[in-house]
Amino acid sequence: MQSRELAIQYAQTQKEQFLSDLEALVKIKSISTDPESKPEMIAAAGWLKDHLLKIGCQKANIYETKGHPVVFGELTSNQNHARTVLIYGHYDVQPADPLNLWKTNPFKPVVNGDYLFGRGASDMKGQIIACTKAIEAVFRHNPDFPLNFKFIFEGEEEIGSPNLPDFLSQHKDMLAGDIVLNSDAGMYSLERPAITYGLRGLAYFEIKITGPKQDLHSGQYGGIIHNPAQVLCEVIAKMHDDQGKVTLPGFYDNVREISITEQELIQTTDLNDEYFLEQTGVPKLWGEQGYNPVERIGTRPTLEVNGIESGFYGAGAKTIIPSSALAKISTRLVPDQEPASVRSQLEEFLKQNVPSTVRWELVELAGGPASLVNLALPELKSLVDALERVWGIHPAYQRSGGSIPVVVQMQTYLGIDSLLTGFSLPDDNIHAPDERLHLPTIYRGIDALIHFLYNLV
Amino acid sequence: MQSRELAIQYAQTQKEQFLSDLEALVKIKSISTDPESKPEMIAAAGWLKDHLLKIGCQKANIYETKGHPVVFGELTSNQNHARTVLIYGHYDVQPADPLNLWKTNPFKPVVNGDYLFGRGASDMKGQIIACTKAIEAVFRHNPDFPLNFKFIFEGEEEIGSPNLPDFLSQHKDMLAGDIVLNSDAGMYSLERPAITYGLRGLAYFEIKITGPKQDLHSGQYGGIIHNPAQVLCEVIAKMHDDQGKVTLPGFYDNVREISITEQELIQTTDLNDEYFLEQTGVPKLWGEQGYNPVERIGTRPTLEVNGIESGFYGAGAKTIIPSSALAKISTRLVPDQEPASVRSQLEEFLKQNVPSTVRWELVELAGGPASLVNLALPELKSLVDALERVWGIHPAYQRSGGSIPVVVQMQTYLGIDSLLTGFSLPDDNIHAPDERLHLPTIYRGIDALIHFLYNLV
Repeated sequence: MQSRELAIQYAQTQKEQFLSDLEALVKIKSISTDPESKPEMIAAAGWLKDHLLKIGCQKANIYETKGHPVVFGELTSNQNHARTVLIYGHYDVQPADPLNLWKTNPFKPVVNGDYLFGRGASDMKGQIIACTKAIEAVFRHNPDFPLNFKFIFEGEEEIGSPNLPDFLSQHKDMLAGDIVLNSDAGMYSLERPAITYGLRGLAYFEIKITGPKQDLHSGQYGGIIHNPAQVLCEVIAKMHDDQGKVTLPGFYDNVREISITEQELIQTTDLNDEYFLEQTGVPKLWGEQGYNPVERIGTRPTLEVNGIESGFYGAGAKTIIPSSALAKISTRLVPDQEPASVRSQLEEFLKQNVPSTVRWELVELAGGPASLVNLALPELKSLVDALERVWGIHPAYQRSGGSIPVVVQMQTYLGIDSLLTGFSLPDDNIHAPDERLHLPTIYRGIDALIHFLYNLV
Repeated sequence: MQSRELAIQYAQTQKEQFLSDLEALVKIKSISTDPESKPEMIAAAGWLKDHLLKIGCQKANIYETKGHPVVFGELTSNQNHARTVLIYGHYDVQPADPLNLWKTNPFKPVVNGDYLFGRGASDMKGQIIACTKAIEAVFRHNPDFPLNFKFIFEGEEEIGSPNLPDFLSQHKDMLAGDIVLNSDAGMYSLERPAITYGLRGLAYFEIKITGPKQDLHSGQYGGIIHNPAQVLCEVIAKMHDDQGKVTLPGFYDNVREISITEQELIQTTDLNDEYFLEQTGVPKLWGEQGYNPVERIGTRPTLEVNGIESGFYGAGAKTIIPSSALAKISTRLVPDQEPASVRSQLEEFLKQNVPSTVRWELVELAGGPASLVNLALPELKSLVDALERVWGIHPAYQRSGGSIPVVVQMQTYLGIDSLLTGFSLPDDNIHAPDERLHLPTIYRGIDALIHFLYNLV
């Protein structure tokens, strides 16, 4: 038996250990956006450091940043001239609200059937443990395996990786390597893995509209005050035209249209309207006219209202004119849009559209440009082959609608390309209540990762 | 000396007693919305019952309701065929939060200069005691005074008088009378009293827009889903046209335009743009074109967004497409708009304007029509004359933008018109920290009430 097969065989005996490791990590409430979770962010980093030492790293350390810490570990091969693979992961998770919509406690992981339920089980604590377990298996049966590994686990992916650029630029030599494996992207479907070669960028803002100095009695003042909640609605309503296009001035100026070849590549998927209707439960799809759903998500920029809040919205009736109104607005960007330009466009839009009856403020909360991986990379072929071996089907080539700033940052600060794949499923409810991980798929993922590593050497 | 003057003279010797009675009542923390104040609500009702017996009522009782009790007392004249005046008041007060903004303890009344400071001093415990003291004075010098009095003091005005209709309809005979004196409205200014002869009605709704079955990742789905927060904004933005008019179909059909005479009547006030800008702190006024601020508040219907809520609005960034979005929307109505018609209009509006990409629900939360006192009522003339005698100026005629459900209820259930006046000042800080009562004004108010009662007979 080849050592490749022995490694896979070993990994298959480790399923219980995988599960207990993952459960231990999911239990740590590492919500990066919540200031109260600071101690648990530190606990999660500590857990990962210990975990890296257990799977064979010669060193593992926690690096402080201005925000949450980065865990860095190295597993150096005893072979000379071994190439280096960087394993990227993020140990932070999204908030679990609204808690009342979860069937189980998001931070008390529970196995039910083929799934492990818990916040971060799929995005991406499960993916991290899959990577470390694959590498552990490879070295267990081949201590002379000729690849070096460097692990970078950050704690700020869900808030836009604001401090990762500093970390990367301050530790260029330490982080030097040949390719990044980032398993924060997902499967195309249960039966078909995917390579994500394109990601949208992000520019995230908060807009505040302020009217009267305090909430006013809506009877005593209704009719003479431009209600800030109403103004906010009026302004947001103008952000799209009736063709579903974003109306920020100049928003589409730098948008790179996709080539016919690429258009054909992404059309090999069969994600049609029915698929998305079922996934989302909406009565009807919507969006920019002239593009199909896959194109709209992967290749077109969008603007979303992530949240709005103003005045009274509890049970019953309170008759006020709210003093202010707040919105969280984000744009998803494609090559070659720049977040800084979008900020200027939004500022210009607000100057043009917010009436002089109120005051407004704009705050930029997060941002990063879009990215595209070179489809001709040899490491990409190694990954494609590995996925094909396990699933018996050519992986789907995806341009994801999401944003993974680290992919751009790895290229910018270290000059290293990222391979984006992963074993989360479209119905894993990531960022939503009842997040879950499909265990048979993650186990197959570990096998595929072992094949990938052997393909590289 | 006429008995009218003797009564006034007597009242003037009673200032200290007035003050100590009022202080005793203000000390009772009768916050109707606070479940913990239940015992003090009962204590306040008990205090008022005793007070009514002290000022000469032959009977006074406490009536339980589903909420806080009603105090009812009768002072029956020894003259046959005497007409009956109902004295309305509410003994509940607004919460005192935020407590840290008060200079004194809101429930330890303190006299400072011309003012008595304390929660409820102006709204409306001071007004209640002014009425009882005026009536006490009248009978003290004229035991044969030919008017009957019935006192109705409720404990739920600040929470919308939910149980008063039941009380009124269950005790029609007991409550029969000729006119209601309601001193829960205020002065126009320190130098000028006011008659509030119009109140707007209310129709209050909750609208819910639902899109995807749960919050979605804004990257994975942004571009194909009509975001419910965006839809809510688009719908709310359509509720006004660019002239500030409400666009619900048929909204203005039954609006009674005011006559030139009435227009002139309410224009005798000098509440201009500057006044409202200073009161509210907004950079610029807004509203329906073609009407000045006083007309817009008093005589025109409006639609207000009392609150909106959707998705994520905490600190930081969360990239979701919210599953749903909620708005509290209320309309202020004028004669002859009906709350039930407005509901139909809003329903029709939503049918026409909510796109088929989402689902919607409409719930009606509260409602009541507008009310207008007949300016030709002889009792109104009696009151105007009384106010003129004391202040030497014609009172301002006001149509208030607010809604006082009890005025409509007295008309609906008992068939009795209300005269709305009162001796609170615009800067008494009612519903706010440092609520206060201007003592020289309330003493003048007692004199005016004595004149009013004598004018009636």
